[in-house]
Amino acid sequence: MSNPEDLKVLVTGAGGFVGRELTRQLVAAGHSVLALDRQLTGLEQHPNLTGIEIDISDSVSLSSAMDTAADAVIHLATVPGNAAEHDPVAARQVNVGASMHLLEHVAGWGTCPRFVFASSIAVLGDLSSYECVDDTTSPAPTMIYGLHKAMIESAIAAYSRRNAISGISLRLPGIVARPAGPSGMKSAFMSEVFHALVNQEPITLPVSAEATFWIMSVRRCAANLVYAIDAGLDDLPEHRALTLPALHVSAGDLVAEIERSTDAVATMLRFEPDPDLQRVFGSLPRLVTPAADSAGFTADEDLPTLVSSALAAIREV
Amino acid sequence: MSNPEDLKVLVTGAGGFVGRELTRQLVAAGHSVLALDRQLTGLEQHPNLTGIEIDISDSVSLSSAMDTAADAVIHLATVPGNAAEHDPVAARQVNVGASMHLLEHVAGWGTCPRFVFASSIAVLGDLSSYECVDDTTSPAPTMIYGLHKAMIESAIAAYSRRNAISGISLRLPGIVARPAGPSGMKSAFMSEVFHALVNQEPITLPVSAEATFWIMSVRRCAANLVYAIDAGLDDLPEHRALTLPALHVSAGDLVAEIERSTDAVATMLRFEPDPDLQRVFGSLPRLVTPAADSAGFTADEDLPTLVSSALAAIREV
Repeated sequence: MSNPEDLKVLVTGAGGFVGRELTRQLVAAGHSVLALDRQLTGLEQHPNLTGIEIDISDSVSLSSAMDTAADAVIHLATVPGNAAEHDPVAARQVNVGASMHLLEHVAGWGTCPRFVFASSIAVLGDLSSYECVDDTTSPAPTMIYGLHKAMIESAIAAYSRRNAISGISLRLPGIVARPAGPSGMKSAFMSEVFHALVNQEPITLPVSAEATFWIMSVRRCAANLVYAIDAGLDDLPEHRALTLPALHVSAGDLVAEIERSTDAVATMLRFEPDPDLQRVFGSLPRLVTPAADSAGFTADEDLPTLVSSALAAIREV
Repeated sequence: MSNPEDLKVLVTGAGGFVGRELTRQLVAAGHSVLALDRQLTGLEQHPNLTGIEIDISDSVSLSSAMDTAADAVIHLATVPGNAAEHDPVAARQVNVGASMHLLEHVAGWGTCPRFVFASSIAVLGDLSSYECVDDTTSPAPTMIYGLHKAMIESAIAAYSRRNAISGISLRLPGIVARPAGPSGMKSAFMSEVFHALVNQEPITLPVSAEATFWIMSVRRCAANLVYAIDAGLDDLPEHRALTLPALHVSAGDLVAEIERSTDAVATMLRFEPDPDLQRVFGSLPRLVTPAADSAGFTADEDLPTLVSSALAAIREV
């Protein structure tokens, strides 16, 4: 690789919630970014940033946007969980079809670039019966979204074995705080609670106060993705997928910390658990991630830091 | 399920080498077969057999051919290993795209039918450093074909977890003896040696006499697939994939047994190992398959039985 301060990085899904923060951090670190997404209106202008608005499920457009090799690819573009459940066929065109096309195309470069795939803890499936999740927990997705991510994790590993890419899949936890409005994510309530408290609006959470989940601020998430483009990968597991470290917090503790940070009082907040959502998104056990830890990936330091970082992200939008 | 003697079974790839034998065995067992393939010219006519010639990568044709629910689906259609290496994009349309469309469509039936997926030992990848392969060996494909099969194994397991199908993936070993002519299989030499000896033609094998592989006669393979449509699956591993039992034989022993069975002498047979083929197809270690054994799947009894069964298949064509 060339100077790690000046890589050409191709980012898919660059116009999205994580993509915008990632692009900002990449150019701030001195890299050049080729940003792809259907819409790139939310990106700040920068001399080292080139944007191309395409639908990446259109393979002809995707190939032509990628006619010269990049030093690294970060593949974020995805149809998220709720949307994928509602239309598995359309979701597959992006989540599987476009991802495979991207890999096949990058393999054709012949340069074995770093390829960072934004996977998801959804590959792990129903964790409500686990006491602890660690690096030996096998993927067993139940959602369409988690299945699609697991399929591409396999492809990342196989193309890496072929020396076509230097691949790594990072399984992202719940990322906060997404912008207000529909996200297509079933776990959107984790972000909506920030907006409701900041704006003093009523909110009903579909989980109990005791519900537990794994979360990370969008800034920390983007920092981990930036780190992945030139991290040493010699000690990766054979399947090349890492569950990222994350804070393991309860809904009640998260609400209390947002109240403390914003001087708000959650008078209009109610917990009304939906059994399915509580099981899938609110019953996450203890998480240990030695492989990701030793590779240098990090969670937010603590809950106050995470909340303060997530609130800053909301206020910037 | 209805009477296990009279199931409606949908078979993809029914016009192929394994598909023709499978279809013959299914109708002989009293089942009704809806046979799909691009070409069905090789199928024997039978009152319980309906054939539709379609390209299953055309999702509109596939959906319309599947407008009524079947009791079971056996999915054989595939772009094989050699062809997939030469055109990964085209192979993916069938191996991944059509397979996913099939699953999505069958899930829409709402009947949770048995779904038997013809996977391959190619999902296991390079086994040349193993002393033994068993049910704990993790998939680690290196070939495009093996990757595509591994991706669909994941989908079979996920759709089964969702109770959309009662799925099982059977990893087929080398199946003999394929008809003469191009097959698109890198392992075709295992079948070509039968034809060369029967026809007293010269042949150069791309492996050494000491090369070892896992093989099964096409009749035994089809019998295992028929068995899978109403086998009890309660003890399947969570990933629902079984490596089928197979005979572990050396190239030299196989040649000697074909000579004995045909009274031929292999005067025009030479071993000229190609290092890559020897490693991937000729270095298979001992195989133990307790999960498949206890579920009732079987290998050919012994090498003479396998050779005699494979020779009979050649002579019938």
